[in-house]
Amino acid sequence: MLGQMMHLPLTIGSLIDHAARFHGAGEIVSVETSGGTETSSWAEIGANAHRLADALHKQGIELGARCGTIAWNNRRHLEIYFGVAGGGMVCHTINPRMGPEQMIYVINHAADEVLFIDATFLPAAAKLAPHLKTVKHIVLMGPRNDEQAQMLDGLVFYDELIATGDASADWPDLDEKSASSLCYTSGTTGDPKGVLYSHRSTVLHSLGGNQPDGIAISAKDTVLPVVPMFHVNAWGVPYIAAGTGCKLVLPGPNLDGKSLVDLIDAAEVTLALGVPTIWMGLLGALAETGSKVPSLTRTVVGGSALPPSMIPKFAEYGVDLIHAWGMTETSPLGSMNQLLQRHQALSKEAQDKIRLGQGRPPYGVDLRIVDENGTALPHDGEAQGDLQIRGLWILDSYFGKDQSALTADGWFDTGDVATIYDEGFMIIRDRSKDIIKSGGEWISTVTLENIAISHDSVANAAAIAARHEKWDERPVLLVMKATDVDEADLLAFYEGKVPSWQVPDKVIFVDELPIGSTGKVQKNKLRDVYGDCLIA
Amino acid sequence: MLGQMMHLPLTIGSLIDHAARFHGAGEIVSVETSGGTETSSWAEIGANAHRLADALHKQGIELGARCGTIAWNNRRHLEIYFGVAGGGMVCHTINPRMGPEQMIYVINHAADEVLFIDATFLPAAAKLAPHLKTVKHIVLMGPRNDEQAQMLDGLVFYDELIATGDASADWPDLDEKSASSLCYTSGTTGDPKGVLYSHRSTVLHSLGGNQPDGIAISAKDTVLPVVPMFHVNAWGVPYIAAGTGCKLVLPGPNLDGKSLVDLIDAAEVTLALGVPTIWMGLLGALAETGSKVPSLTRTVVGGSALPPSMIPKFAEYGVDLIHAWGMTETSPLGSMNQLLQRHQALSKEAQDKIRLGQGRPPYGVDLRIVDENGTALPHDGEAQGDLQIRGLWILDSYFGKDQSALTADGWFDTGDVATIYDEGFMIIRDRSKDIIKSGGEWISTVTLENIAISHDSVANAAAIAARHEKWDERPVLLVMKATDVDEADLLAFYEGKVPSWQVPDKVIFVDELPIGSTGKVQKNKLRDVYGDCLIA
Repeated sequence: MLGQMMHLPLTIGSLIDHAARFHGAGEIVSVETSGGTETSSWAEIGANAHRLADALHKQGIELGARCGTIAWNNRRHLEIYFGVAGGGMVCHTINPRMGPEQMIYVINHAADEVLFIDATFLPAAAKLAPHLKTVKHIVLMGPRNDEQAQMLDGLVFYDELIATGDASADWPDLDEKSASSLCYTSGTTGDPKGVLYSHRSTVLHSLGGNQPDGIAISAKDTVLPVVPMFHVNAWGVPYIAAGTGCKLVLPGPNLDGKSLVDLIDAAEVTLALGVPTIWMGLLGALAETGSKVPSLTRTVVGGSALPPSMIPKFAEYGVDLIHAWGMTETSPLGSMNQLLQRHQALSKEAQDKIRLGQGRPPYGVDLRIVDENGTALPHDGEAQGDLQIRGLWILDSYFGKDQSALTADGWFDTGDVATIYDEGFMIIRDRSKDIIKSGGEWISTVTLENIAISHDSVANAAAIAARHEKWDERPVLLVMKATDVDEADLLAFYEGKVPSWQVPDKVIFVDELPIGSTGKVQKNKLRDVYGDCLIA
Repeated sequence: MLGQMMHLPLTIGSLIDHAARFHGAGEIVSVETSGGTETSSWAEIGANAHRLADALHKQGIELGARCGTIAWNNRRHLEIYFGVAGGGMVCHTINPRMGPEQMIYVINHAADEVLFIDATFLPAAAKLAPHLKTVKHIVLMGPRNDEQAQMLDGLVFYDELIATGDASADWPDLDEKSASSLCYTSGTTGDPKGVLYSHRSTVLHSLGGNQPDGIAISAKDTVLPVVPMFHVNAWGVPYIAAGTGCKLVLPGPNLDGKSLVDLIDAAEVTLALGVPTIWMGLLGALAETGSKVPSLTRTVVGGSALPPSMIPKFAEYGVDLIHAWGMTETSPLGSMNQLLQRHQALSKEAQDKIRLGQGRPPYGVDLRIVDENGTALPHDGEAQGDLQIRGLWILDSYFGKDQSALTADGWFDTGDVATIYDEGFMIIRDRSKDIIKSGGEWISTVTLENIAISHDSVANAAAIAARHEKWDERPVLLVMKATDVDEADLLAFYEGKVPSWQVPDKVIFVDELPIGSTGKVQKNKLRDVYGDCLIA
């Protein structure tokens, strides 16, 4: 027996239409690539999104066609998010920090038919253009500019393009399972793999991720997504913002601490979202400028491990730092660290300690840890296992692949090793390919590195698994010195910080550590070079 | 092109499983019908829900079968909500305030196969039993009790029933559009009509209704739904509570102000939800007992018009009163009065004035007002029209009817007349069948009644449309006196409160006003008697 309720599809078009209809005067502040700040509104974003969809349809771009973007967080990028997806096409956000070969690969692999670019990326796009097999139109996100027009044959200008579209054109009728956006993961090995989000997964992520214990955006908020719109759809913030009608502040290309402090103060931002590196820059600029960012009440941090000092440092400014975890494959919200009622009786220090972890899953996401046989392990705060995830906004298979990316029983393996406490509080221990398996016990390379880096003489460090005749693997530490220090000093520094059997067997001093395109140390390369150093 | 994300169904079973898995220790406080309070947990509620579903399946109750409840808000009722729906059956909540004939009608119309009853309703159920055509089992919600067993042949006891079920039994695989619960509207005319909710509509209402600008329940909250579980699923609170893992307080049968104050203080309730009458009782008890309900931060009010004094009265206790609007047909959340960023600069008084209205729709709901031709009217705060609604959790057709209940273009007509301001703030002016159409202009009976009732000498009042030769209709006021007053005094009292053309043409003093089963004055009966009083 079926229910007898309306069955309207969950679509991205309905999000922007809600914003335009019920929050039309809500402001969008956009730092433009050309410099300066402009203020738009949800009504204008909505109208331009409809214009863009209609203009693309008039150009013969069909439902399901991919449209790439290489762009900062700005007003036109927001319109493209809603216009392309609302119009039934797929918004493929491209990370401009990829090398040219990878960019050519993903654009051809996605078979992008349109490529929207910010002026910043015009020189790069001009070089890429001859290698792009499917792109019919390259669209510069701005008004006509003759100088720019001369840099690339056939360059289309965004403002002229949308002028050919009708703001009153209806969205096409879409199945809610239709593809809406595409984002490639920057894997450390192999070609990038695409995650193809659907309208349904995006709307459910918006609703499920914006509960009071989630990102928790209200119409009263002014929200600054520093996280780029080419990183997992800026963590879904543009969609959530439209659903709630908040004021949105798009920071453009300048993400240094000083620029962000100025923007937060000028636009009276209440909530900002970004990676730890961004917040290190912001905290530095706060100390320099003396601003107390009085409007800012909270920041959401994710994307890489959270330095323990960051929560109390933000607290000095009255800002609540909320730790979240996710991946491109998880839309991204997998967990968020919001305390429970029973935690409220704890001391601030005890609360902060819990809040350093990756937190608990919202409704819509399930997490588990499993052993090497795929057997679920207890949520007891002790067992460590491979972290697996399933839910309403989690990948099933990679773009263009028929084969499921899931386990036989339907879970996505994150590639992380984690511990889960009762009531779901999860802590990521390491990447599963990095963790050191020593005599059946696991040693976290992240833990060993954090200790090394806290030593004054260490500039950077990486721990790796080296093969060992008796224990299978043992930890070896690679260290870039800041000031002079020897192996014995460093190893002594571990005393009392980890069990003695976790202390590295060896320290090797190096001049530099290999860094990948995502800014992380490439431990696989270190294992290739040093993996046999305990045997040889 | 379809997205490549997991496609898991939105089910009520997944809500309770989330609560049991990630908020297992979260408390459920339940005031029992037999007296006293017991504390359970989400883990226990989840286990018992699975036991119940399995036990019902073992009794041969099949997917889609309706199971009725006549019960207060308590722990077993909560288990029935999740066990019946999770198990693929339909939870039909019956309003015990209906007369016996209506109860027999709805139970037979729903074809309930099982009837769960609280001890309070055993004598009534024993009288109904011979008239129930489809009920196979009547289940008393408690442990075996020999005295109760003698009152009804074949009476089953809930605690014995669930003991036959397995807590580890899986939920059946369900289409998310499957029916999950059923609630009849208590229409003033004709037979009650059933609204058949689906798993999908219920989960989307939980997610969309619990945004920060919605009911906004966090795991840190302790939530008291005073609104009965037989009124539109207690406004969806049980489902939202499971999705968030909050502490839930179920007040049982005693809903007087003193009992509620004691419960709020004992359980440290942070959020309570109910109708204005309940809050009048609570405010009275607060004045009497001297309690300041220090834990309580907010109340949600809906179900009938909000007395203007209630917002500032609650504010004296530091409690934010939030006005919401909805209907059985709308799950119920249609709008909620949460202010926007730009309202924050207004004075408290100006804010309170806005907050008296019914508020704005969340994402997932669209509202419009139309004229008599169905043409949409502007959202300008002046135009009045029939209020229509559509969205993710709005009725399509009534239970058992093939015919859509919607307009040709897919909207549900609420039967209310409303004004909508820019940005969607909506104010209900009257029921469309009650409003007075005088010379092409509309006069709200609600406005005329509120003025009359604010006169010290008036105990109760109703305004109706009386036929008029020149103006088609003119207002007539029916008044129950509290102390002596004459027509001239009362009409003079309207001066300056409404435009002079809205002042009633006539006052008729009556000994009583006809009240329907929902506690509202039956104006249709008054129109039958007095509709021609200006002509005759």
